[in-house]
Amino acid sequence: MAFKIGLLGLGTVGQGTAAILLDREGRHPLLKEIELVRVGVRSLSKSRTIALPENLLTTDLEAIVTDPEIDIVVELIGGVEPARSLILKAIDHGKHIVTANKALISRHGAEIFSAANQKGVYVLLEAAVGGGIPVIQPMKECLGANRINTVMGIVNGTTNYILTRMQAEAANFDEVLQQAQELGYAEADPTADVDGLDAADKIAILASLAFGERIKLEQVYCEGIRGISATDIDYADRLGFTIKLLAIASRSLESDTDNISVRVHPTLVPKLHPLASINGVNNAIFIEGEPIGQVMFFGPGAGAGPTASAVVSDILNIAGIITTTNTPHGLAESAHPLMTCTHQHYCELAPIEELITRFYARFITRDLPGVIGKLGTCFGNHEVSIESIVQIDTHGKQAEIVVVTHDVREGNFRAALDELKHMDIVDRFPSLLRVL
Amino acid sequence: MAFKIGLLGLGTVGQGTAAILLDREGRHPLLKEIELVRVGVRSLSKSRTIALPENLLTTDLEAIVTDPEIDIVVELIGGVEPARSLILKAIDHGKHIVTANKALISRHGAEIFSAANQKGVYVLLEAAVGGGIPVIQPMKECLGANRINTVMGIVNGTTNYILTRMQAEAANFDEVLQQAQELGYAEADPTADVDGLDAADKIAILASLAFGERIKLEQVYCEGIRGISATDIDYADRLGFTIKLLAIASRSLESDTDNISVRVHPTLVPKLHPLASINGVNNAIFIEGEPIGQVMFFGPGAGAGPTASAVVSDILNIAGIITTTNTPHGLAESAHPLMTCTHQHYCELAPIEELITRFYARFITRDLPGVIGKLGTCFGNHEVSIESIVQIDTHGKQAEIVVVTHDVREGNFRAALDELKHMDIVDRFPSLLRVL
Ligand SMILES: NC(=O)c1ccc[n+]([C@@H]2O[C@H](COP(=O)([O-])OP(=O)(O)OC[C@H]3O[C@@H](n4cnc5c(N)ncnc54)[C@H](OP(=O)(O)O)[C@@H]3O)[C@@H](O)[C@H]2O)c1
Ligand SMILES: NC(=O)c1ccc[n+]([C@@H]2O[C@H](COP(=O)([O-])OP(=O)(O)OC[C@H]3O[C@@H](n4cnc5c(N)ncnc54)[C@H](OP(=O)(O)O)[C@@H]3O)[C@@H](O)[C@H]2O)c1
Repeated sequence: MAFKIGLLGLGTVGQGTAAILLDREGRHPLLKEIELVRVGVRSLSKSRTIALPENLLTTDLEAIVTDPEIDIVVELIGGVEPARSLILKAIDHGKHIVTANKALISRHGAEIFSAANQKGVYVLLEAAVGGGIPVIQPMKECLGANRINTVMGIVNGTTNYILTRMQAEAANFDEVLQQAQELGYAEADPTADVDGLDAADKIAILASLAFGERIKLEQVYCEGIRGISATDIDYADRLGFTIKLLAIASRSLESDTDNISVRVHPTLVPKLHPLASINGVNNAIFIEGEPIGQVMFFGPGAGAGPTASAVVSDILNIAGIITTTNTPHGLAESAHPLMTCTHQHYCELAPIEELITRFYARFITRDLPGVIGKLGTCFGNHEVSIESIVQIDTHGKQAEIVVVTHDVREGNFRAALDELKHMDIVDRFPSLLRVL
Repeated sequence: MAFKIGLLGLGTVGQGTAAILLDREGRHPLLKEIELVRVGVRSLSKSRTIALPENLLTTDLEAIVTDPEIDIVVELIGGVEPARSLILKAIDHGKHIVTANKALISRHGAEIFSAANQKGVYVLLEAAVGGGIPVIQPMKECLGANRINTVMGIVNGTTNYILTRMQAEAANFDEVLQQAQELGYAEADPTADVDGLDAADKIAILASLAFGERIKLEQVYCEGIRGISATDIDYADRLGFTIKLLAIASRSLESDTDNISVRVHPTLVPKLHPLASINGVNNAIFIEGEPIGQVMFFGPGAGAGPTASAVVSDILNIAGIITTTNTPHGLAESAHPLMTCTHQHYCELAPIEELITRFYARFITRDLPGVIGKLGTCFGNHEVSIESIVQIDTHGKQAEIVVVTHDVREGNFRAALDELKHMDIVDRFPSLLRVL
């Protein structure tokens, strides 16, 4: 049996994928059954690093997704349209889908999976989270015995690169961002990365896998790293923490009703935590469950080769199932229960005010006796229990005070801050970060 | 469709597995289709931490593996016999097999997989390596696009615990081993762990997965940690290394003929390498391939809960495939090509003399001028290129010298040592370690 692949997009990941499919020696023997038959792009004249066999390239992507010869459509265009319409049309024509498109799946996953289930085809997306790191397939096939409490990770290489350099060089955000842009580690418009939106797409996907429920992306709380200063990195370091942009999905198993929180924010991570030492553009996904305890997957979160490795593993997985069931087009009578996405319910995420977390906050106050007492009293009134409160520095008539709390309800902490804002002793609070 | 499980063994992992199968709420929905129907043990009267439904327990293990009602036999007895015979008989009766038995698979894998392929059943063994960490399934299903060059890892928790404590407390092997035994982290007979035999079983399994060839366990070079002293840990630390017991399978892609080396030995790992910071009883498996680059899987390498998580994930995977193919007993016409072990050829492993590696060696010599020159000359004569040679300490008339080489052929290095042994300036060399 031979499997015919239609590839949409021949950019970074598309070229990496084609490179593997055209050079199969020494890889899994099943790859020899897999044939790249069409590649759709925007421009035929663009120069490419990869030499394709003749007549593969076309600008008619519709023809690919409707081609009766094609078994699997691999979408590596990115963005919502035309990716969404092409995938839906491919599904409608009975094609299995492989995609790396986190932006699309996090927004339109429900629509796409419903269509796929109805038509009896698979939609796999290993490359959408963590680039080359196997994480989606392992979550589906290796952690099913567990009740997952937490999935969290460093899932955006650009921001991790920036934070790693800020830490190493005691540099500020703006200068490192500029250098990262010059080096190609950050895009000209860095919004999706530095404001945490890309990480939010990814954690929405991981959360839905971990908890078996659909997630509304607009309910994911999202805070980026623009506000992180060299000062905070330094203070965090002295307190034993490294600042990382974490994407976190957690479920409290204590409360009567499931309480799921999905969020992205810079976080003070204890230096001994496995996520604290993930540096540069690397990604890592950390999972905690019962009875497995803690596991972590680490590796390259992006790049042509690693991402293509994940794309091709999805192709192999689909080909493996089709071989086994002997049903070349469409699913067998019953879909593979670990490979399909069957959950139908949207869960309501807990609002950020309900989060129970520790905080780190830095205040600039008037340098008067009794300031610390007033801060402490105000927090106490709002049931915010303080772990430490330290006056770090004095600048003329101003003092710099760092507060670290115990686990508190975020709503209470914010209410305390609101009150402090109106007290004349507090000038401003430049930083407010959560602590793992 | 319901899947009936016969469990052999109700010790640490058996009880962990039964606990999951008897408490299915909040785990993967497919678990609801899985029913534990028989449990075989040696002693019916032994007290267990788990309360089983009545009439599950039996001492007649033969009856379990031949029971026509049972779909999947889970072997958690350990050791070679009676595990081997029971598994072969179960296969002969058309049962799928899940096992955590690395000792058995590394010795009799060929026999077992051949029987399984002939009979058309699956043999899965996620729990045999890395305890709860998903590694075997991810290697089979997520890395197929890659040419794997290296799989290496910390796959024995006992030795990693001992080395971590030796490092933290500048303590010697014997005292830490004794404490580890008292704490239950090491067995009364610690041979399998501290001499690297358990790690050798595991790397033989990983190597055969990575390279698609059968491995002869007796060709795996194996060196344990009994010879590691606090002195070496200290010197390694000063040179920027942490000493870890690594199990390594590597393939040199340069040579014309594939050159596969599989070995276990204490290794100086650069402190910035991801494996250097894996501490305590944790395990980690590090894989390097083209085009993925480097990925690492980290987590608990043993224990009832984590290991049972892996066992149950194998059960779910088999149930998943059976559901899809609708063939309750035995395989579909074609076996799932990513889930079966089809390779038939034994590969010849490169002898340790052919290994290209860096070395760290510590010498006690007479404290005479010219000693370093003589050492250097001798190494030079054997084409051993030296990176550094440092006189660390002088004790009376003796000097302690540490040599670190560049990449050299191990055979050449050993020949140089043989010659040095016969020179009257060298008193002894207490340590000889490889450097990553
Ligand atoms: N880059 C990474 O490291 C990475 C990592 C993980 C996931 N991903 C995901 O992988 C996907 C692809 O990313 P990429 O970096 O490979 O993107 P890219 O380099 O920008 O390539 C996009 C490709 O799609 C084609 N394309 C775009 N719009 C099209 C249209 N309207 N009609 C036809 N063809 C169109 C382009 O054609 P032309 O070449 O003719 O312009 C190009 O070949 C995205 O979903 C991304 O999020 C990327
Ligand atoms: N423990 C771990 O953390 C771990 C981690 C990874 C892999 N593994 C592997 O998992 C397997 C099981 O390990 P374990 O630690 O669970 O072993 P264990 O605690 O020693 O349990 C062994 C079980 O097998 C039964 N058994 C032994 N010999 C038998 C015989 N001849 N007939 C009938 N029953 C027999 C014992 O019965 P009784 O209870 O009646 O004595 C006991 O229930 C081994 O292959 C091990 O290498 C263990």
